[in-house]
Amino acid sequence: MLQAALSNEKTTKKVILFSDAAKYFANDRTRMKEILGGKGAGLAEMTLAKCNVPPGLTITTDVCREYYANNSQLPQGLFNDVLTELKQVEDQVQRKLGCADNPLLLSVRSGAKFSMPGMMDTILNLGLNDETAKGLTKLTNNKRFAYDSYRRFIQMFSNVVFSVSKDLFEDALDELKFERKIKVDSELSGDDLETLTDTYKQIFKTKTKIDFPQDTKDQLLQAIEAVFKSWNNNRAIYYRNLNKIDHNIGTAVNIQSMVFGNLNNNSATGVCFTRNPSTGEKILYGEYLINAQGEDVVAGIRTPNKVFNLQFEMKSLYDELNDTARKLETHYRDVQDIEFTIEDGKLYILQTRQAKRTAQAAVKCAYDLVSEKIITKEEALQSIEPLKLNQLLLPSFDIAQKEIAVESGKLIATGLNASPGAAIGKIVFCPDEAEVLNSKNEKVILVRHETCPDDIHGVVASQGVITSRGGMTSHAAVVARGMGKPCVAGCESIKVDLDNHEFKVGNKIYKKGHLISIDGSTGEIFDGSIDRHEPKITHEFDQILKWADEVKVLKIRSNADTPEDAQTAIKFGAQGIGLCRTEHMFMDPLRLPYVVKMILATNVKEREQALEKLLPMQREDFIGIFKAMNGFPVTIRLLDPPLHEFLPKVLDLVNELHELKLNKADSSKIKATQALIARVKDLSESNPMMGLRGCRLGLIYPEINKMQVQAIFEAACEASKTGIKVFPEIMIPLVGHVNELKVIRTQLEEVATSVMKEHKLEIAYKFGTMIEVPRACVTADEIAQYAEFFSFGTNDLTQLTFAYSRDDAEGKFLQRYLEGIEINGKREKILIDNPFEVLDQNGVGKLMKIAVEYGLQTRPDLKLGICGEHGGDPSSIKFAHQLGLNYVSCSPFRVPVARLSAAQAALSNQSGVTKDV
Amino acid sequence: MLQAALSNEKTTKKVILFSDAAKYFANDRTRMKEILGGKGAGLAEMTLAKCNVPPGLTITTDVCREYYANNSQLPQGLFNDVLTELKQVEDQVQRKLGCADNPLLLSVRSGAKFSMPGMMDTILNLGLNDETAKGLTKLTNNKRFAYDSYRRFIQMFSNVVFSVSKDLFEDALDELKFERKIKVDSELSGDDLETLTDTYKQIFKTKTKIDFPQDTKDQLLQAIEAVFKSWNNNRAIYYRNLNKIDHNIGTAVNIQSMVFGNLNNNSATGVCFTRNPSTGEKILYGEYLINAQGEDVVAGIRTPNKVFNLQFEMKSLYDELNDTARKLETHYRDVQDIEFTIEDGKLYILQTRQAKRTAQAAVKCAYDLVSEKIITKEEALQSIEPLKLNQLLLPSFDIAQKEIAVESGKLIATGLNASPGAAIGKIVFCPDEAEVLNSKNEKVILVRHETCPDDIHGVVASQGVITSRGGMTSHAAVVARGMGKPCVAGCESIKVDLDNHEFKVGNKIYKKGHLISIDGSTGEIFDGSIDRHEPKITHEFDQILKWADEVKVLKIRSNADTPEDAQTAIKFGAQGIGLCRTEHMFMDPLRLPYVVKMILATNVKEREQALEKLLPMQREDFIGIFKAMNGFPVTIRLLDPPLHEFLPKVLDLVNELHELKLNKADSSKIKATQALIARVKDLSESNPMMGLRGCRLGLIYPEINKMQVQAIFEAACEASKTGIKVFPEIMIPLVGHVNELKVIRTQLEEVATSVMKEHKLEIAYKFGTMIEVPRACVTADEIAQYAEFFSFGTNDLTQLTFAYSRDDAEGKFLQRYLEGIEINGKREKILIDNPFEVLDQNGVGKLMKIAVEYGLQTRPDLKLGICGEHGGDPSSIKFAHQLGLNYVSCSPFRVPVARLSAAQAALSNQSGVTKDV
Repeated sequence: MLQAALSNEKTTKKVILFSDAAKYFANDRTRMKEILGGKGAGLAEMTLAKCNVPPGLTITTDVCREYYANNSQLPQGLFNDVLTELKQVEDQVQRKLGCADNPLLLSVRSGAKFSMPGMMDTILNLGLNDETAKGLTKLTNNKRFAYDSYRRFIQMFSNVVFSVSKDLFEDALDELKFERKIKVDSELSGDDLETLTDTYKQIFKTKTKIDFPQDTKDQLLQAIEAVFKSWNNNRAIYYRNLNKIDHNIGTAVNIQSMVFGNLNNNSATGVCFTRNPSTGEKILYGEYLINAQGEDVVAGIRTPNKVFNLQFEMKSLYDELNDTARKLETHYRDVQDIEFTIEDGKLYILQTRQAKRTAQAAVKCAYDLVSEKIITKEEALQSIEPLKLNQLLLPSFDIAQKEIAVESGKLIATGLNASPGAAIGKIVFCPDEAEVLNSKNEKVILVRHETCPDDIHGVVASQGVITSRGGMTSHAAVVARGMGKPCVAGCESIKVDLDNHEFKVGNKIYKKGHLISIDGSTGEIFDGSIDRHEPKITHEFDQILKWADEVKVLKIRSNADTPEDAQTAIKFGAQGIGLCRTEHMFMDPLRLPYVVKMILATNVKEREQALEKLLPMQREDFIGIFKAMNGFPVTIRLLDPPLHEFLPKVLDLVNELHELKLNKADSSKIKATQALIARVKDLSESNPMMGLRGCRLGLIYPEINKMQVQAIFEAACEASKTGIKVFPEIMIPLVGHVNELKVIRTQLEEVATSVMKEHKLEIAYKFGTMIEVPRACVTADEIAQYAEFFSFGTNDLTQLTFAYSRDDAEGKFLQRYLEGIEINGKREKILIDNPFEVLDQNGVGKLMKIAVEYGLQTRPDLKLGICGEHGGDPSSIKFAHQLGLNYVSCSPFRVPVARLSAAQAALSNQSGVTKDV
Repeated sequence: MLQAALSNEKTTKKVILFSDAAKYFANDRTRMKEILGGKGAGLAEMTLAKCNVPPGLTITTDVCREYYANNSQLPQGLFNDVLTELKQVEDQVQRKLGCADNPLLLSVRSGAKFSMPGMMDTILNLGLNDETAKGLTKLTNNKRFAYDSYRRFIQMFSNVVFSVSKDLFEDALDELKFERKIKVDSELSGDDLETLTDTYKQIFKTKTKIDFPQDTKDQLLQAIEAVFKSWNNNRAIYYRNLNKIDHNIGTAVNIQSMVFGNLNNNSATGVCFTRNPSTGEKILYGEYLINAQGEDVVAGIRTPNKVFNLQFEMKSLYDELNDTARKLETHYRDVQDIEFTIEDGKLYILQTRQAKRTAQAAVKCAYDLVSEKIITKEEALQSIEPLKLNQLLLPSFDIAQKEIAVESGKLIATGLNASPGAAIGKIVFCPDEAEVLNSKNEKVILVRHETCPDDIHGVVASQGVITSRGGMTSHAAVVARGMGKPCVAGCESIKVDLDNHEFKVGNKIYKKGHLISIDGSTGEIFDGSIDRHEPKITHEFDQILKWADEVKVLKIRSNADTPEDAQTAIKFGAQGIGLCRTEHMFMDPLRLPYVVKMILATNVKEREQALEKLLPMQREDFIGIFKAMNGFPVTIRLLDPPLHEFLPKVLDLVNELHELKLNKADSSKIKATQALIARVKDLSESNPMMGLRGCRLGLIYPEINKMQVQAIFEAACEASKTGIKVFPEIMIPLVGHVNELKVIRTQLEEVATSVMKEHKLEIAYKFGTMIEVPRACVTADEIAQYAEFFSFGTNDLTQLTFAYSRDDAEGKFLQRYLEGIEINGKREKILIDNPFEVLDQNGVGKLMKIAVEYGLQTRPDLKLGICGEHGGDPSSIKFAHQLGLNYVSCSPFRVPVARLSAAQAALSNQSGVTKDV
């Protein structure tokens, strides 16, 4: 019955007091926001939370819709309703609109369901006229305050209601200041401002041909209409189009009594966080000013006080503020950022919102709010932005020291913040040299035009990387992120000169060996060294991740190519390896010669001889990885890249050849180089990404695959004998046709069986494939016949689905696509996100969905995962969860991010917020 | 009632006389083939068609299934049924099984529903024993014949029924010949063969421990069982696995009375076509031999007579054969290839099948059979293999002259038959030189390692092309096929030496200017010139294509880049241009310098200046094309390839630079080359196929697109003013995201509108896109918002769906995929067809289906087509028809093939044969 009565009132009530909202909307916050708008709902909620909000009322958004439906006429009787409710406001604050002795001043503001900051109109200080201005002067004993308020009101009202240009008023103000020979507004006296008020009224009359309205009710009525009109001004329409906001939802009008922090010395104004936004400590944190207005705190003319000190100036008010802060935290179930004003010893709360905070604070607050029983673990998990956690896993520069460095001109250049973290080291240009210096415990930073797979040992040996070319997904950026090393990429202002071992910025030259500091989180490069803070995983952080594990459905694996990577992954909570790239094992300088021999072999026998040398090395790697991953599955991808990636570049060889000829070198040397050129040319391809690589390598040169599988199973058997639990998963890359997998599987299971027989052991292994070719997605039903697992290689799948060569796209057009293409003077974005960073659910995702459906049709227990960088991106992890995958795999340093993201995905699915995959 | 009775008999009757089959199966040929097998059904049908077939009977396939179900036992009473029916055969031929005076000899053969040639067993001359051999000698007065038959029977029977090795008998034969000091079997006398028979019987006894069976019924029973057993021999099982034939369908056994063309001089044997298989002329065509067996005609020991001459030797038999030929044609509704035997003045038909024929004959026969009211137009259309029509559109070498050339050692080498046709010309190595010579009316043949877009003018200027590298889908092959020029590709035995203007084959050197002839249909290259026959479109051919147009649903358009191509396309019946590649217009040597200038421009203004030069040239091209296509739509694709394709290669430039340095060239020259190298490097890409090309070019350099659209619309307006009806369709390549199309469309429609306004004309145009990126397929619903048509670019879509770079795949792995990968001693094919030749319906096709469905959801009147080489492939055209596309577009010379294929697709859909898309 009560519910019915409420519903009934809902539909008719057009003017609602902040203090009455609760009874009309009960707990239906969504509806409250729709009808009262965001601001109105916020004020109502704070009132509900027993905060002392300056009283007021809201005209509902229904009225706005009626206004427009009714040819821009306010509904009959509406203004009477407003006046009726306003009476209650007057009673509460004991002031009266238009009353000369004790005038009530009002703010009249818009407020739609969605925030449209600055798009619609606002009028402050409404209720001032010649009489009330005098009254206010008497009441406050502050003529300056009264007339400054009045002249501001005239300007706003004239502009908003009658479209009189603001400039006319500003000009008059400037003229007066010129006359008085003063520079700052605040130097004007109360008398000056009274004079100015007269001038303002004159401007109004000249422009509108009428006197400035002295009837305060008239002021109010016109202000209300003006706010409704502003819903359809050009900038509001443009904003709604841009943000896809429905044009029909309309705005509410909020009419609120004004309070003044600048009334006297028993007044103040300030902002405060309910907890420290940097550290999360539970203490009020913010600033205030005695006898001041909100603007003054921001303007920086006077130095504000720390809120902490308020307890020494106004103890009881500080306590009240603190109580309010806790009340608001409990009510909103989150740390708040509050605006408050004290008017003549009385505390008012003007606004509250979720507090922005650092990762450290986010983690501590979430943990503490749970301990204080204010929020649930689930809410705690949802309150943290996963990507922020990266900050907690990396060293960072001391902020104060960085500021000093910038001020003293030590900032050399700024590039792309390609991989976060802080590194200090000596400049080095050659990867080999980096390695040598590193072995002597010298810290170095590698500087290159860009990096390539050949340079990996140099990256490994360095503290961080700088490149002058390449974007966020360039080789250097990807590799550095994978290793958790800071990287500043695409820093174009740096001119790298490899020959002379130096780089130039403008006219300044930085030589090899010069000490620099790089901040991969900001892209900054500094001259000299800056102090760093090392990261630590706090108890709170650890606990939050454990809560995440309780909630998440997805397993989190890590990409790891070495035993060291595998150990790091385990440390961060990985539940297995989702991608072990065997080619990185080949890049080791000790091994590369055999790899090259293997590639240059002209027959199977020669190739097998070279492979035999590589076998024990690979076996050792695998043993180390299996040991680190004891009990967890390890997915090993067989050799994937085109063979020419292991060889020198043709152009380099040709230059070498010319050099040899020029220097009349030994003819045998020339011939050898010529032969090498011929072989490299023979292997080189127009589009290597789509050439002889992946499973095609294994089909054309089966002996490579066979060696790798032999190494894996020998390692598995050996590790197994020492009590380690091994679960190898053999993964075949780039499969596009079921027959590829069928033939390779037959080939390799023979090897596996024979090794196991020899060792008299049974290893529980799986055989599966990357899904990274579009054809594999649409024929996944066939492929699943021979695959026990699918691992989506979303990097290559994105390349092929978009036809974007990752190496080329970044530099040639992707950046432009993300920035937007200019058309008719406007920038039209082609892409919202870089599809190599955020999984393209609409395109690539559709193919994945097809693959999952088809695959499960054939094999209901098919294991499904994602490897590749998307495995560490929160929105992509959410998608993986919705798709019903079993796991995602990401770089070791992304594992905590992925754990939290997976938990959030599970929670958002439970609450049914997003199921529209 | 009758039907019910028939059905009843169907299920029980296990032994059926050839002459009785009609009454059990009525017109249900499919069922007849299932129950009697292919051979049995054929014999029954010929009997039904009133041909004189040697009488016999068939044991049904049901019996085979029963035999295996029943533990390899013949059903109770079966043999009695056989003997009962055999009585009727004996009565008909008036001979008796096992009767010494007048013995009936039988053949016992297998025959399943599907042909399994040579996989199962056959026994001839069954019924011979010591007695009947003597009787046969008397009856035929030919001891040699009788005992040769007997000894062959013993060998076959021993081998088939008792698995006695054939070698033992062959050894005995050789021994006898050695003893008699003779070399050829036929020199053995009747007595020799009688002796040999005894030896054979002895071999049998030694191996089986029993005497050779003299009871002819026993022989028959054992032969029947042996045939059933052979259904499950290893080679039959292997064959069925390979050809995906169901192992449960079983074989029938055909028991037929034998006739002998070698009985006497009133006997003969031969083969004949009912019409000339080369020309289609309605006259018996074939060969026969008097007093001979089937083998003798093939063996070539005696020279056979032309069947035509039979009328002079045996007039009435010739007439009877002719009548039978017509009867069989009418019955089978097609030209037949007949085996016949005359035994003592009586004509027997042993077998008939569809006659293989040349394209010319296929067309003439189809047309004539319709004129003779034997078949319908629809059957005529279905009787022709579309790809064969190519032969009719190209010149061809005189076959006799070619044979002479081969015999006299004039065959230089054989490569891949990459583009059919016959060409004669002088060897030339340089495209520019080809052009110069062509302008002097010299016929040349271009020889290259391989061709690239820069060489196109050379291909245009040549009669044909030879490449030493590259496959069927290499650049040269594709371009040559597009132009209808002969091409021999990948001819590896030719060592091309561009520097010395010669090529070597072994030790022989062929210099520039040497005259050669190439046959693109066979891949042969000949020294000197061979006579050619020019093609002509006969009345019959023209008529058939018109019938095709009446039936087909798909429209056939052509790919054409020049007015000349467009004219050719119209000549062959194209209904518009489906793909006009504007980049080919840029390759003209007169234009290339401006194109290069445009590319090397460092700012928009320079680029626009270069484009201004190209504008009038493009406009002229379009005017010519619109004129040729008067009334038909012309789809024009804006610039697609990466810009560096128009520039020299980096490696060439680097070599040039070294050369310049070595020769101490002018420093300005060196600097210019260095600058060019820098720019080319800047533009070069790791995977250009997926780089800055297609619509991306137009988004980054809008001025290129704008110039092209301006040229198109200016041309359209000008052509329109001369009364030509123009329907331009602007096609944007490589779209993967709807926003690309949206922005480009806005950009270009502005240009189009402004040109039309200037000319005060309204041109009816469409705006659409290639669908060639997988992402475009799965987001086709979005893309269709801005596209009025989709044209499937199946070449690129195949590349991306498979992740096969076409340039690399052919040489590196595709050939191996098609040949098969060796695994456990067997070759496993990865792919059945080259997906660049035959559309991959299972993968690429699925994406196309998604695109069609999604596209039509958004825009029900969306126009759909295929451009690219698949548009000329019959199976792909059928798929396009089934997918409901509106048109396919192929190279001009493929238009007739496509017209016929489209008609066949429409017909096969009507009959509901294949709807399982």
